[in-house]
Amino acid sequence: MDEPGFTPRSLAECRIAIVGLGLMGGSLALALRDHCREIIGVEADSNARAFARSHSFVNRLTDFDLALGASDFLILATPVCTILAQLASIHNSQFTIHNRQSSVIILDLGSTKSAIGSAMEKLPPPFDPLGGHPMCGKEIGGIENADPDLYRGKTFVLTPLPRTTPNALALAHELIAALGATPLLLDAGTHDRYAAAISHLPYALSVALMRVALATKDEAQWRMAASGFRDATRLAASDLTMMSDILLTNRTPILDSLKQFRAELDALAAAIESGDPDSLRAALESAQTKRSELFKP
Amino acid sequence: MDEPGFTPRSLAECRIAIVGLGLMGGSLALALRDHCREIIGVEADSNARAFARSHSFVNRLTDFDLALGASDFLILATPVCTILAQLASIHNSQFTIHNRQSSVIILDLGSTKSAIGSAMEKLPPPFDPLGGHPMCGKEIGGIENADPDLYRGKTFVLTPLPRTTPNALALAHELIAALGATPLLLDAGTHDRYAAAISHLPYALSVALMRVALATKDEAQWRMAASGFRDATRLAASDLTMMSDILLTNRTPILDSLKQFRAELDALAAAIESGDPDSLRAALESAQTKRSELFKP
Repeated sequence: MDEPGFTPRSLAECRIAIVGLGLMGGSLALALRDHCREIIGVEADSNARAFARSHSFVNRLTDFDLALGASDFLILATPVCTILAQLASIHNSQFTIHNRQSSVIILDLGSTKSAIGSAMEKLPPPFDPLGGHPMCGKEIGGIENADPDLYRGKTFVLTPLPRTTPNALALAHELIAALGATPLLLDAGTHDRYAAAISHLPYALSVALMRVALATKDEAQWRMAASGFRDATRLAASDLTMMSDILLTNRTPILDSLKQFRAELDALAAAIESGDPDSLRAALESAQTKRSELFKP
Repeated sequence: MDEPGFTPRSLAECRIAIVGLGLMGGSLALALRDHCREIIGVEADSNARAFARSHSFVNRLTDFDLALGASDFLILATPVCTILAQLASIHNSQFTIHNRQSSVIILDLGSTKSAIGSAMEKLPPPFDPLGGHPMCGKEIGGIENADPDLYRGKTFVLTPLPRTTPNALALAHELIAALGATPLLLDAGTHDRYAAAISHLPYALSVALMRVALATKDEAQWRMAASGFRDATRLAASDLTMMSDILLTNRTPILDSLKQFRAELDALAAAIESGDPDSLRAALESAQTKRSELFKP
């Protein structure tokens, strides 16, 4: 045991607990195992626990309350509403509040940040929280799809709170560097507005597009679906719990993005209806230029 | 020279002219060169002609009017409005109308079929036309990206006209088999409605989505754009001439699809706004189920 009041100053000194060993948490465990003192896993699903154990993802598995007491750096890698429930449960964890003398950094990987930030502000003193959101993922989740390079080259957003200590922020940066990711500091509100436009709106469009196509009951239509339709609807296949948690905890920015989107779509419909090639081309051109610049084929 | 009135009964007997040696026409030339008597290329761009010549895509290059006289099977592989102009120009081609005694099958690869079908109906007697639309492509066009396997495993829609002969339809099926594609017979109107929902609507969404994101002038937002945004906006990078030709020649079905889409999006916005997890999940679920069934990861 460390002396009471011990606070790690580097990742190598940390006992890291990862709560939720799915795609994100599992990939994190694989990427971090040579960069810290110990990795403690917490996972509700027995199959995922068995997979984590047999593939040496973690040094040991335990439950949430014990992980709070045994770690210096707790990472919540579950869907947003589960993270909110876990943060709420910490208040009732007698063990933590009374037996901890050193601080515990808490970082979450949730896809929306304002609701989680508010819940983190209310945590009792031993905790040193900050928000995080790595901009990566895969179409299929689960620990069996975990990949130590999932985070490599990707943007990892950090949303520190007013109470976040410089030490917690420095260790979060060290963790991001160990993953091969690039940090991006944003306040939670800005993150949520950008995420609405860049991630949640595309998901909503993808779902509505599938629903339009579903209204036609002719197999021939699906036989015409090629790579364009496949890519445009890919997000509709996302995990329902993850996505409904996102939509429910980021309602205002998403509804604002939907409103902006409707205005853009109406303008485009008007250009199509006008039948004027020049105004139509003008409506399409800025989108083509920026998209081509953003993602080189 | 063949005897006057010669009509080929198999692809192997055909002199095939391909008008437009871009991605689609170039790939067609590569896939067909061992399946027919001769491939004649027609291409306006001198760089593409030089590439076709140096890489043996065709047996010879000529101009449109000469190709009309020298081929048994003419394939129009240009954007929709160029196809319409080419079909109109045939009426003025004295050579063709007066000097041809045998018929010429005309197949186009245009992305919309009603306007082209109407133009084909007006062709003079030596021509035996039908519409086609292979459901494949690539993000980047051009003959330098041509691939003999571009059509393999893909759906190739045929939209025969009332005047299309059984011989032309049989040869089009033989051509599709030679490409390794699968034929799908539809009338032009049905094709255009399905294409609006499955291809033109996703393009419009992709453009409007880019335009929403462009309204935010902060580089941080683009750093958050991950694979979801990349795929959701891929179609916005499509060739502007090809796409504006499509939007201008399929206006009514596209505007109908946009109307259906707005209704679906409004329903989804209402479910998000309600904050009720069950009705939200119900709105997302059918799209997820069908998308997962359509495209196995």
